[in-house]
Amino acid sequence: MSTVDRAERVPKQDRSRATRQRLLEAAVACLAEHGWAGSTVSVVAERAGVSRGAAQHHFPTREDLFTAAVEYVAEERSTALRALFPDGSRAADRREVVAALVDLYTGPLFRAALHLWVAASNEEQLGGRVTELEARVGRETHRIAVELLGADEARPGVRETVQGLLDMARGLGLANLLTDDTARRDRVVTQWARLLDGVLG
Amino acid sequence: MSTVDRAERVPKQDRSRATRQRLLEAAVACLAEHGWAGSTVSVVAERAGVSRGAAQHHFPTREDLFTAAVEYVAEERSTALRALFPDGSRAADRREVVAALVDLYTGPLFRAALHLWVAASNEEQLGGRVTELEARVGRETHRIAVELLGADEARPGVRETVQGLLDMARGLGLANLLTDDTARRDRVVTQWARLLDGVLG
Repeated sequence: MSTVDRAERVPKQDRSRATRQRLLEAAVACLAEHGWAGSTVSVVAERAGVSRGAAQHHFPTREDLFTAAVEYVAEERSTALRALFPDGSRAADRREVVAALVDLYTGPLFRAALHLWVAASNEEQLGGRVTELEARVGRETHRIAVELLGADEARPGVRETVQGLLDMARGLGLANLLTDDTARRDRVVTQWARLLDGVLG
Repeated sequence: MSTVDRAERVPKQDRSRATRQRLLEAAVACLAEHGWAGSTVSVVAERAGVSRGAAQHHFPTREDLFTAAVEYVAEERSTALRALFPDGSRAADRREVVAALVDLYTGPLFRAALHLWVAASNEEQLGGRVTELEARVGRETHRIAVELLGADEARPGVRETVQGLLDMARGLGLANLLTDDTARRDRVVTQWARLLDGVLG
């Protein structure tokens, strides 16, 4: 490869990566705002300022685009969550850790994922993909929760306690879908963080 | 009114009530199976074996039919839940009470309500109706939970504990949407029923 070729190739890869990222972010925003029925590859391409052809080069099918988008944003959020507590867990932070975990389920990502989830429950083609995706994202979130809460899963009941907490977080996200549930949610988070202190020590 | 008129009128009212009930049950089943996009008054009327005109006599709009359906089935389920524990709460029943509360969110009713909820988040006309409906159903479920758990809401934290439990139940319902989550859910229910014993006494 000549020096000139190499010089041209790197920016091209960068451009490709940037295009992909713009498509993924546009896809999540689109799902959150318009739901599955209103989210097509064309709509997302237009929102991202990318041609339909370029979008299809990155994501051959609609299912590819939207499952990749939810996974990408979930990873971004996991990274951001870990970054909030760079020194790992301290019991004193427990309420903040619970609040941050719950926050994962109250923004546009959860809204987008929920639309995908619900659509997948009626569309076979999407169903398998989303089930796999949710299992992966769910395992990763559980791992982060255990780490940040300083939970010792070797102790009986601890694993189920953390799982129940994440189920509660999902339920709180659902309760926030139609109305701003912030005030009630804050009180529930405070109380459940207190309950966790009793179990996790 | 002649005796003959009266005799004819009563069965007519009964027939009307039975038609209404068939429509409501068909509407919930339809929402659960096909989602909001696939649920129209015509589809429900056909499923219920009722003419489209008769359906529209009972429910002038699609929003009327589906919000009434979710409310009707929610009331049926609340009644059934109270009937499971006719003598009210006993601490010994706590795990069973938690399991029964969680069960409210794992069947076709929750699936139907979820479709309605998600559709309402993108459709303004539906949004107001569903927000009101959810507030009513949510208050009633909270009341039953407090009663069956024997929770004393005058004590600090108890109200938020019960709220968090119902949020967890909703989250467990969501986790059951795409896969059969029964085994995991049973373990979470067992553990959180134990934790509740500590708080509720």
